[in-house]
Amino acid sequence: MKKELFPNAYSDKLFEQVYDYLLERIRRGEWKAHDKLPSVRVLAAEFEVHRLTVFKAYQLLKENNKVYVKDKSGYYVQPGSVLPPAVQQDPIVSAYVHESHLSEIHQVEAVYQFSKALLDPNLLPNRYFSEYVKKVFDLYPKVLGTYSTTQGDAELREALSRYFTDRYRFDLTKDEILITSGSQEAIDLIARVLVKPRDVVLLERPTYSPAIDVFRRQGASIIPIEITPDGYCLEQIEEMMQNHKPRLFYMNPTFHNPTGYTVPAEQRKRLVDLAAEYHCLLVEDDPCPDIYFGKAPPSPFFAYDTSGYVIYIRSFSKYISPGLSIAMVACRQGIMNYLIKAKSLSDNGTPLLNQKIFLHYFFSERMQQHMEKLRTALAIRKDIMEEELSGTGWQWRSPAGGFNLWIKLPESVLMDELLGKSMEQSITFVPGTICDPLRELNSWIRMSYSYLNEQQLREGLRRFVSLFRELFGE
Amino acid sequence: MKKELFPNAYSDKLFEQVYDYLLERIRRGEWKAHDKLPSVRVLAAEFEVHRLTVFKAYQLLKENNKVYVKDKSGYYVQPGSVLPPAVQQDPIVSAYVHESHLSEIHQVEAVYQFSKALLDPNLLPNRYFSEYVKKVFDLYPKVLGTYSTTQGDAELREALSRYFTDRYRFDLTKDEILITSGSQEAIDLIARVLVKPRDVVLLERPTYSPAIDVFRRQGASIIPIEITPDGYCLEQIEEMMQNHKPRLFYMNPTFHNPTGYTVPAEQRKRLVDLAAEYHCLLVEDDPCPDIYFGKAPPSPFFAYDTSGYVIYIRSFSKYISPGLSIAMVACRQGIMNYLIKAKSLSDNGTPLLNQKIFLHYFFSERMQQHMEKLRTALAIRKDIMEEELSGTGWQWRSPAGGFNLWIKLPESVLMDELLGKSMEQSITFVPGTICDPLRELNSWIRMSYSYLNEQQLREGLRRFVSLFRELFGE
Repeated sequence: MKKELFPNAYSDKLFEQVYDYLLERIRRGEWKAHDKLPSVRVLAAEFEVHRLTVFKAYQLLKENNKVYVKDKSGYYVQPGSVLPPAVQQDPIVSAYVHESHLSEIHQVEAVYQFSKALLDPNLLPNRYFSEYVKKVFDLYPKVLGTYSTTQGDAELREALSRYFTDRYRFDLTKDEILITSGSQEAIDLIARVLVKPRDVVLLERPTYSPAIDVFRRQGASIIPIEITPDGYCLEQIEEMMQNHKPRLFYMNPTFHNPTGYTVPAEQRKRLVDLAAEYHCLLVEDDPCPDIYFGKAPPSPFFAYDTSGYVIYIRSFSKYISPGLSIAMVACRQGIMNYLIKAKSLSDNGTPLLNQKIFLHYFFSERMQQHMEKLRTALAIRKDIMEEELSGTGWQWRSPAGGFNLWIKLPESVLMDELLGKSMEQSITFVPGTICDPLRELNSWIRMSYSYLNEQQLREGLRRFVSLFRELFGE
Repeated sequence: MKKELFPNAYSDKLFEQVYDYLLERIRRGEWKAHDKLPSVRVLAAEFEVHRLTVFKAYQLLKENNKVYVKDKSGYYVQPGSVLPPAVQQDPIVSAYVHESHLSEIHQVEAVYQFSKALLDPNLLPNRYFSEYVKKVFDLYPKVLGTYSTTQGDAELREALSRYFTDRYRFDLTKDEILITSGSQEAIDLIARVLVKPRDVVLLERPTYSPAIDVFRRQGASIIPIEITPDGYCLEQIEEMMQNHKPRLFYMNPTFHNPTGYTVPAEQRKRLVDLAAEYHCLLVEDDPCPDIYFGKAPPSPFFAYDTSGYVIYIRSFSKYISPGLSIAMVACRQGIMNYLIKAKSLSDNGTPLLNQKIFLHYFFSERMQQHMEKLRTALAIRKDIMEEELSGTGWQWRSPAGGFNLWIKLPESVLMDELLGKSMEQSITFVPGTICDPLRELNSWIRMSYSYLNEQQLREGLRRFVSLFRELFGE
């Protein structure tokens, strides 16, 4: 049956429509965990369909762990299998809105923000930056009076295509680059253009939490792919591609968020071949390839791709200029045309000013030299975090780059309590569950060492560890 | 039957699902204009549903002018009733993407761009602007290192709430304002949050073309509302609200695009009452209230609203700073919470730099004084356009504000030919069809007088008029 499930949306079967409908009602919270669902007979009458159709829909819900059967007495909602109800219904707002769980934690004001995988603004060359901006206004005196094209400033795209060709041997023209307002917009556009309800999407487990939210909102069927310090299990991926015909695999293979793991070069080549063989797009999100502590990471998947199956998202916000929100998507013309059309309706082009400032700032010699200082500063902060946590017995793999420690706490930890009490002490972190497409990983947390300065790091971590001991003993 | 059609998505009937499915296939171009559709018998077998269900779906398609019946021999696709097929299928891209038709015309490079309803960048105080930007960097030296919150910079929202309270007596706090990356993003977010497939949406006829594209993409059933120099026919609107329970009415009531018409104050008050009575949101798009040639326009609908049914979009791109792309949405808390969540997944906040620059530029005394100069400059350009076209016999209503002339050409005009030949002569304009939800208005065009300088205006219009005479005689 699985095979019929995902041919393409044109040939939706009736039982799949019933499936969608029931799942939607569960998601909206009409039926809650452990609620008994209406009988096959009742639903068949309600929908004017054959009972077998409802039965097939229920079978599929069961297979996908959305419902369970108890004592042969009927179907019940599986707890935790779907998102919690999208807040209480507003009388005049009834469309279904998915929440971005990460953004909620970020809204908490806190002194010790270990939840922010962002660069401390003090590590950026701010004075120098201001000088550059003035230069931009001298160069383009009418920049504020001018709209960008939808695809993005041609001068910037030209410079980026040269940069990626020189540095990573990308085969990339300026027409194959789209400038977006940050990587979040890039993910959203890709999902909107490529993913229809019930399309299968592979996501790493754990992964970048807002990506889960975006693909869920599109109605995708999400299959988790475990990521480990050694990369993926390619046999598992091939099996998934073969059996489930995924539309795409959204991945973050270099200094992965939240784990910090990097997929080795030899796997990159093989996975690109698998993608072409099974017609599964690889959406490669690459927010911090320059933040390495030892040697530079392997080239992006995009460099290995000759068949046009890799869509490369490169963000420049995290460690270059968060206040500009500049990112780019590189892909081949077929997909590019669709992305440009989607962007024309979503914001019709990233502001020109931001693109021009970014262009002159990023490609300046000073900025490129500054990377070295950044790496050193972040390596020191990472070391501090590891030192402060060294006596705890908690487990993590020391990352070779990026912004985060992905930490396994003792299984017995009560995460809600830990998060609540931490916030009371002005400490935030990211609970692992929200990075997990399955919403498990209850005893893992992500702690970022990039946003706080050395003294804040030490203070905050000492408070956090002592709070933990207070709550859960040694 | 109509009444059952739009209760809400939770109770989708089976024939409606069949309806959606058939319409989607027509939209995708699987069946083209005048193609014969499969028989009721064949589809009932394919979908495993009762023939009556398919019959009901076909009846609804017929009612909505998507198909027609010929000689009792079957159902045929009604030409022009749906969008043209979304370009040819790309082998690895199959999701359905709507095109933004206006953005395609804007991509044409031309000397005489009468298609651009934008301000000539030379009319902006660019030097002065550059000075302000430097000031912003002195005030916020770390602005480039800092992300904005999703809702937008609190200082800017505070200033805007004071501005609207002072100027229009809005009852508006900073928590009821969302900063967006231009009004296109605002429309897109509102559509995504509020509109589900088959929801009824009222749109002015003609209207802002990308709005048609956005609501179509959401799968809305669009009902056109005629806008005239005297505003709307409120009886028609009330009837539509009563019979079709529209989710929202997207409107542009002040110096309307493309017509330039303004809905009078007395209609505003009454329409706000109707909206509350029939639970229909009014989405008020207000891109140029300051560009008036005689007296200032009436207050926005939002000022009349006490029940929370108006969502106010104010763009600051068109005549203040196109390169910054700053707009805002004002609405009450219930809807605001959903918009913030949607924005967190779509771009997670408008760049902070743009917000800070806008804040200091827009609220400066100099900018406010500059408005007066702008009005004068645009009034002169409008007069030039009207003078150059005065001998043509074409018809238009002289606008009291805004950027456009909405012109009726003789019925006999062949629009495709006119547009094609104009482009060959480096002249662009907007054909009325793309501003029309019904894709008619074949002999209307929108010409903007805002983008070209006085000399270009005269030259371009003379060429255009003489081309027209060449093609179609006097």
